[in-house]
Amino acid sequence: MNDNNHIKIIPLGGLGQIGMNITAFEYRDTIVVIDCGLAFPEDDMLGIDLVIPDVSYLVEQKDKVKGLVITHGHEDHIGAIPYFIKQLNVPIYATKLTMALIDGKLKEHMLDNETKRHVVNFGDFVDFGDIRTEFIKTNHSIADAAAIALHTDAGVIVHTGDFKIDYTPVFGDPIDLQRFAELGKNGVLALLCDSTNAERPGYTHSEKTVGRAFDEIFDDHEDTRIFVATFASNIDRIRQIINTAYKYGRKVAVQGRSIENIVVTAQEIGYLDIPEGTLIDIDQIRDYPDEKLVIITTGSQGETMAALNRIANKQNKWAKIKPGDTVIFSSNPIPGNEKAVSKVINELVMQGADVIYQDAHVSGHASREEIKLIYSLVRPKYAIPVHGEYRHLKAQAMIARDMGIPREHIFILQAGEILKISENDADRSGHAATGSLFVDGLGVGDVGNVVLRDRQILAENGMVMVFAAVAAGTGELVAGPEIITRGFIYVRESDEIMTEMLEVAGETIRRLSEKGIADWNKMKSAIRDEMGSFIWGKMKRRPMVMTVLIEV
Amino acid sequence: MNDNNHIKIIPLGGLGQIGMNITAFEYRDTIVVIDCGLAFPEDDMLGIDLVIPDVSYLVEQKDKVKGLVITHGHEDHIGAIPYFIKQLNVPIYATKLTMALIDGKLKEHMLDNETKRHVVNFGDFVDFGDIRTEFIKTNHSIADAAAIALHTDAGVIVHTGDFKIDYTPVFGDPIDLQRFAELGKNGVLALLCDSTNAERPGYTHSEKTVGRAFDEIFDDHEDTRIFVATFASNIDRIRQIINTAYKYGRKVAVQGRSIENIVVTAQEIGYLDIPEGTLIDIDQIRDYPDEKLVIITTGSQGETMAALNRIANKQNKWAKIKPGDTVIFSSNPIPGNEKAVSKVINELVMQGADVIYQDAHVSGHASREEIKLIYSLVRPKYAIPVHGEYRHLKAQAMIARDMGIPREHIFILQAGEILKISENDADRSGHAATGSLFVDGLGVGDVGNVVLRDRQILAENGMVMVFAAVAAGTGELVAGPEIITRGFIYVRESDEIMTEMLEVAGETIRRLSEKGIADWNKMKSAIRDEMGSFIWGKMKRRPMVMTVLIEV
Repeated sequence: MNDNNHIKIIPLGGLGQIGMNITAFEYRDTIVVIDCGLAFPEDDMLGIDLVIPDVSYLVEQKDKVKGLVITHGHEDHIGAIPYFIKQLNVPIYATKLTMALIDGKLKEHMLDNETKRHVVNFGDFVDFGDIRTEFIKTNHSIADAAAIALHTDAGVIVHTGDFKIDYTPVFGDPIDLQRFAELGKNGVLALLCDSTNAERPGYTHSEKTVGRAFDEIFDDHEDTRIFVATFASNIDRIRQIINTAYKYGRKVAVQGRSIENIVVTAQEIGYLDIPEGTLIDIDQIRDYPDEKLVIITTGSQGETMAALNRIANKQNKWAKIKPGDTVIFSSNPIPGNEKAVSKVINELVMQGADVIYQDAHVSGHASREEIKLIYSLVRPKYAIPVHGEYRHLKAQAMIARDMGIPREHIFILQAGEILKISENDADRSGHAATGSLFVDGLGVGDVGNVVLRDRQILAENGMVMVFAAVAAGTGELVAGPEIITRGFIYVRESDEIMTEMLEVAGETIRRLSEKGIADWNKMKSAIRDEMGSFIWGKMKRRPMVMTVLIEV
Repeated sequence: MNDNNHIKIIPLGGLGQIGMNITAFEYRDTIVVIDCGLAFPEDDMLGIDLVIPDVSYLVEQKDKVKGLVITHGHEDHIGAIPYFIKQLNVPIYATKLTMALIDGKLKEHMLDNETKRHVVNFGDFVDFGDIRTEFIKTNHSIADAAAIALHTDAGVIVHTGDFKIDYTPVFGDPIDLQRFAELGKNGVLALLCDSTNAERPGYTHSEKTVGRAFDEIFDDHEDTRIFVATFASNIDRIRQIINTAYKYGRKVAVQGRSIENIVVTAQEIGYLDIPEGTLIDIDQIRDYPDEKLVIITTGSQGETMAALNRIANKQNKWAKIKPGDTVIFSSNPIPGNEKAVSKVINELVMQGADVIYQDAHVSGHASREEIKLIYSLVRPKYAIPVHGEYRHLKAQAMIARDMGIPREHIFILQAGEILKISENDADRSGHAATGSLFVDGLGVGDVGNVVLRDRQILAENGMVMVFAAVAAGTGELVAGPEIITRGFIYVRESDEIMTEMLEVAGETIRRLSEKGIADWNKMKSAIRDEMGSFIWGKMKRRPMVMTVLIEV
């Protein structure tokens, strides 16, 4: 293969770590990166705040990387940008709302002055040398979502980003299906298409249907206060809640930092037009009767610190649930959040609220028939399912086959896998160094698997620490042993188990020093082993046992 | 109120801790306990194996407790029996299969010789003095499920246990609706009815529909090996899988300890009739071609150690997934297990399996219309929704109101709450001591909230331990300080952060000893505070900081 005729496609996050959406496209001397998302930690990543992609493959080829092109403003597509920019300060290209959200992130990390940013319109082309990108209008659960077409001498690649087909969006235009068709007609080499809902039959409903659902619910609950919990980034949803509120003569207050921010941002850029006098401050709600109020809150995923949970738990300063309140979940639980959401619902019901968690949400992702439509318009030579768990990618692969793409032209890529494609051939050709970096507090990458394994042991069984002062040279006991436990069981000084553990430790030290063994490592590991097996024998538990010997 | 005319109903587990189903019924000198279940730990109960109810209220009235009456053999109804029996050795009453499962538990705890057990038939009455109990046939996702009617001079109480209405069960009789009607006709004081599916509209499908689904799936997959994952305790499900396998000329092997046990137990008591030559040992599967095999496995909830996960991860000795295999999930994820299940599905799909996770399962709990039917047959004076989260209990309360029961006759009880009822009145009257006991290894109740909080801190941030030897009296540093970390960050001896932490510790000790402060507690807490704020300032992390000073 001649590298000059092939485009390399390299997902640097993704599989096995849903959320870290970042894909590099490399052609001749140019690399363009689409999206730069973060993932939230899995249950076994104890204490980790965020997970971001390792982009050392790109850092090694710094000079080739020409820009960061962003499809839309969700965390799993923009969340890792500040960490990326600290290593690779390239210009960022995005549509208006997407860029407004990126601006906020860069400011938080104090990177806004040093980062070049370009706001693009749909239909715009951006030239990066050997790759030219084009922004195409799509629909999604956040405004201003774009698909990206990458034009090269070796062919055109289309990346849908996250998308759905909404013929009747509540703001802006429907997805530009004509352009997808035109590109397809002229010939598309590869399609990277959103797989999130590839298992769902049929079509995803229009966002507009949610507005009608709100109308009905508001109509049924004319006499009660209404809370609506939803995703902060879904401005169209917020717009519809406000419109329905206005229609029913209610005032609207918002609660929760991210939703308060987005309402300000969206108004600033002209994406949210609120009827005069409809929006009120949260501290004004006491001036209105219940049936004249709607409160939009964060926390639709059951997040402990979010507004809705605090309202349910009487920890919110302004609003508390009272019997008769209506609470609408305009959301579905993201997989893994089901229990947390249910907990908040129980809390709300316990306070006397009427909770509505059906019919007030639609997905932002294309279902099976929509995916088929995109394939039939674009008619790519190669299919590369993206976005979703493996099962979803596989489901899209099946759709692609149904659409007539031969099995050997469909590629499900692992993170870091390099796919080389051209008109003539396509092959997996090696792996780029990649992986997940854990962000914990201010640290990036300083918590690795050893640390996580220790946290796991500590979490499950706690620890038992034995310490003693021994004489240098002889290993004879000078002071101690003493024992401290944390997270093990509740032990008092006087408990039998404490006496027994002290005996085990003391005996071991004496035995070794009598044998003339003063090697600290031997002594430590002997104490650890003896203590460990004593505790296991006695209580079937395996705490982390640590031994500290001070030489005096 | 005269206690002689009132029945006390006391749930000792339940609300807030789904799973611990145990309810005491107290009338005059008799207490009968229905069910004795355990709960599985919530996410924040780190390292806990099981959660069992605190039954000290019953222990205090030992002489009144006449028996343990069990509705069916699921863990959340029988799992805590051995712990109960160790405190209150009363006779146990249950139907055949239920008792066989209880037998197994008692044997594990070596309690089988000392525990009196009585197998009862549907329609049997058991006399406990002032309370007479009656076992009524119901349907559920385990065979031999019973509702219990409690007959007293103060009225009749009906407890449904977990149930559904199955007009066409695959084994045994349909639920005895006539008896429910007869009891209702004669007058029922209170109904305790299963709420699990009270939010679901309509009717729950018959178990038989799953058999038809298996037929269809087997028909569509004639050429592949078939795995079916399901709940071990659902013998009817296993029976249907075996029947379909037999019909399609396949041999059946089972994998997973709990399912192997249940198949043996069910055969022993005559509840599972397997056509001659159909069941084979797992090590015989290599003797048959793929299309002649069905393997029934545990692990339908994504449990890490269960057979299906091990098969998916190539850790099972006998079976590994290969491309073309069909895997059927004959189950729904229990809330909280969605992610684990999805992980296993991804694993299976990655190995090339075709995974079917729809239409091969029905619930074992009554939906809304079935609950209405029970209410219309029993027509209780008081309604006490049981089984389920608060939202489900509340949903049943709404159904009860729809069925004409006045609001003040409906009681949702907290764990430990005592309800006194009679023909004339019903009132909440105080609380019984109750709560959850954590089982960790062999220990019961020795891990409490302090220990759990420590585990939480250790899990999130790990620990930093500072130790030093100081001179008795003066507090002067003799040896050290030294620092060990676990689960914090990866720190080497030579790292800057280590040097800095050692300085902070050393400085603090010196400063205090110069001031003449040799009080150990002051010294320890000063080191802890200084170190904590140094680390927070530097890295925004809060590890557990421990200080150990040895006096020499």
